[in-house]
Amino acid sequence: MNNKEIPYKIYLEEKEMPASWYNVRADMKNKPAPLLNPATFQPMTAGDLEAVFCAELVRQELDDSTPYIDIPREILDFYKMYRPSPLVRAYCLEKKLDTPAKIYYKFEGNNTSGSHKLNSAIAQAYYAKQQGLKGVTTETGAGQWGTALSMACSYFDLDCRVFMVKVSYEQKPFRREVMRTYGASVTPSPSDTTRVGRQILAEHPGTSGSLGCAISEAVEAATAAEGYRYVLGSVLNQVMLHQSVIGLETKAALDKYGIVPDMIIGCAGGGSNLGGLISPFMGEKLRGERDYRIIAVEPASCPSFTRGRFAYDYCDTGRVCPLSKMYTLGSGFIPSANHAGGLRYHGMSSTLSQLYDDGLMEARSVEQTAVFAAAEQFARVEGILPAPESAHAIRAAIDEAMKCKETGEEKTIVFGLTGTGYFDMVAYEKYNNGEMSDYIPTDAELEAGFAGLPKIKA
Amino acid sequence: MNNKEIPYKIYLEEKEMPASWYNVRADMKNKPAPLLNPATFQPMTAGDLEAVFCAELVRQELDDSTPYIDIPREILDFYKMYRPSPLVRAYCLEKKLDTPAKIYYKFEGNNTSGSHKLNSAIAQAYYAKQQGLKGVTTETGAGQWGTALSMACSYFDLDCRVFMVKVSYEQKPFRREVMRTYGASVTPSPSDTTRVGRQILAEHPGTSGSLGCAISEAVEAATAAEGYRYVLGSVLNQVMLHQSVIGLETKAALDKYGIVPDMIIGCAGGGSNLGGLISPFMGEKLRGERDYRIIAVEPASCPSFTRGRFAYDYCDTGRVCPLSKMYTLGSGFIPSANHAGGLRYHGMSSTLSQLYDDGLMEARSVEQTAVFAAAEQFARVEGILPAPESAHAIRAAIDEAMKCKETGEEKTIVFGLTGTGYFDMVAYEKYNNGEMSDYIPTDAELEAGFAGLPKIKA
Repeated sequence: MNNKEIPYKIYLEEKEMPASWYNVRADMKNKPAPLLNPATFQPMTAGDLEAVFCAELVRQELDDSTPYIDIPREILDFYKMYRPSPLVRAYCLEKKLDTPAKIYYKFEGNNTSGSHKLNSAIAQAYYAKQQGLKGVTTETGAGQWGTALSMACSYFDLDCRVFMVKVSYEQKPFRREVMRTYGASVTPSPSDTTRVGRQILAEHPGTSGSLGCAISEAVEAATAAEGYRYVLGSVLNQVMLHQSVIGLETKAALDKYGIVPDMIIGCAGGGSNLGGLISPFMGEKLRGERDYRIIAVEPASCPSFTRGRFAYDYCDTGRVCPLSKMYTLGSGFIPSANHAGGLRYHGMSSTLSQLYDDGLMEARSVEQTAVFAAAEQFARVEGILPAPESAHAIRAAIDEAMKCKETGEEKTIVFGLTGTGYFDMVAYEKYNNGEMSDYIPTDAELEAGFAGLPKIKA
Repeated sequence: MNNKEIPYKIYLEEKEMPASWYNVRADMKNKPAPLLNPATFQPMTAGDLEAVFCAELVRQELDDSTPYIDIPREILDFYKMYRPSPLVRAYCLEKKLDTPAKIYYKFEGNNTSGSHKLNSAIAQAYYAKQQGLKGVTTETGAGQWGTALSMACSYFDLDCRVFMVKVSYEQKPFRREVMRTYGASVTPSPSDTTRVGRQILAEHPGTSGSLGCAISEAVEAATAAEGYRYVLGSVLNQVMLHQSVIGLETKAALDKYGIVPDMIIGCAGGGSNLGGLISPFMGEKLRGERDYRIIAVEPASCPSFTRGRFAYDYCDTGRVCPLSKMYTLGSGFIPSANHAGGLRYHGMSSTLSQLYDDGLMEARSVEQTAVFAAAEQFARVEGILPAPESAHAIRAAIDEAMKCKETGEEKTIVFGLTGTGYFDMVAYEKYNNGEMSDYIPTDAELEAGFAGLPKIKA
């Protein structure tokens, strides 16, 4: 490490921004398992996938050998509007914790979508536009992905149709209005506009919806309409590829000051942020160049890594999507109603699942009230009100920094601060009022989820 | 101008950040008129003011001769957490408008308070802490100032008591919860916790409150409690001093690339953002070094510059605060209920009022639906959902850029983008649904406001 004084915020210059995405699969010995056709259980071909996804995105989805993929000029230009994002030295948090640890966070919340989701949304919208499509469909839960996609589509003048989980549509009208301001149409899911929506409504009248169900509707809407494709904000390999911009910028910023992290921490729902953040570091690890501790943090109420099964599973409730081999709680698993924020997906990126299964990364689960306590502590000293999702990583980073305080070790911790919590104030209000609770699913509840796993030899 | 390629975002390095605030009054030939004691109509002395305000802030309030005032180290450190803010070249907006104009905006929304208010909040909290106070009181309307102050007080471990205009308290629960997350107590105003609040409630049962009324309550609460002072987020000279950091950074960023703006545009409510943004440019103008067009933009529904009187007036409804000579609509003026967002104060910074009266700046008013149309247009191409307040400046900047398109002039326009609109989605929803309307007060309505002006020879 050199002796340059490290500023509070490390910004790369425009010319230092990554010009390529990094595809970690190229360096993996054990590649992630292929997607399977839900009708035949045979590996999906590019042709199968192109009925649902944009052609170029299919190519990226299936490419597990090209390490670097150029970022098209138009996407780079859009990135320049809100990137590079700052790598922040958490001087104030360190001081408050009185820890010898050095804490850095990569902050992805400084854009109107409020999270890292925009990094992939703009790429997916770009390829849809290049293909001459009229528009795209997607689902959104808490609304971060839907917001990001509506911004990206507005930029490229594409139609954007969002199926929003009904409970969020009703409880988060502000997210909905941001999407509408960007010109997207937002439909509460399940809806009567799709066959699968009508079926779910018939079977579960009065249901408040789920992410898996909204995915099924969005896929059907894309395949039913001329000139439309479906896009997804997490889980897929292509998303992790686009999100590698987070890790590449982080690594460039650290390298600029000669900083080598001991551990890299990220929250994990479907894996888009974690996968993007760790990609270049994992690459070094896979190539045997350097070792890092890499820690995924998930909610105790939706513990796919820490208590899930590594198996082929459906990605959606309606079972219209390809199957993926991943750590999963079963496509029927729905987190307890008291669970706030995102990170509620039953599965996990197949790439991250493979890396975790190969022992290349760790995972831990944290409980909700402890997560909000970390969020509050962080907000008060670092001046950023974090998204509940991001606060999972904060919790783990603080815990690790406190271990350093005990041992006196000056470890360098990097974590991903994926976004801001401005649209999550209902959850913060619960916490402020002392009304927030924890929930850990019982073994029996998990077994019920596993019972729905398809019987496929992995 | 040199030939360096101008990036999308110009960030200063930490070492390039201003180390002093600039006090534009030092360069003014006609100084702003002194504050008057509301009981005696005599100029307020430092002693009078120190009963209400922190001692050091009183010194800054009364100092109209020192041009530069050092920013204390602790404040600089806090600034480093969220500053420098970017000066953004609006390449995408320019392209969309197809204008030869070059448009830049100074974006102050990249912090959890969502606006520039934090620049003065942290300074005021610092001086309160230095004075050994227990806490501070204030009022907030839409909530930006209250949020900023709660963040600043949390950082310095000061108690923070916010009187929030009742209608906002009820309609903006999320802002309230952000303040509570930062440990502030938030009381809907008028309340029964103050004498003036009880009086207003008795005279106007069921009132939804006003900023002027909340100010009166906050001042009373500060003077009634041991170890408390009152702080204010706009209008005052000290606030404009602290906010000069916006203009100083803007000027440093422009200078770095040899850019000389033709005009500088800011929205005007009480004047904190506009005053801060224009300060160093106005200084050059006052010293005869360079000329700029400086344009204040205000809502047609609350037109203090464009239709107000330049006169001594009360700063608050309860008439407990000092009087200020300013452009005012009368302390009893309340903007039409359809008016969204901030910029609803009846008066204006006395410094800006003097500069305007001296012909050193222009002012114009814009109507609400035109403001939201500009907000939407900006959001869709520049990727930032602006605060309704900031959108007033966007409206004027777009109008000026379109004039350039007609004339073919390549003018350089700089405007202040004071904040984000994430807590203003009720107003955006109205706009999205076509339910937003304009309102221009009649001459008779304005005359009624002027009738309440105190009879003082200016």
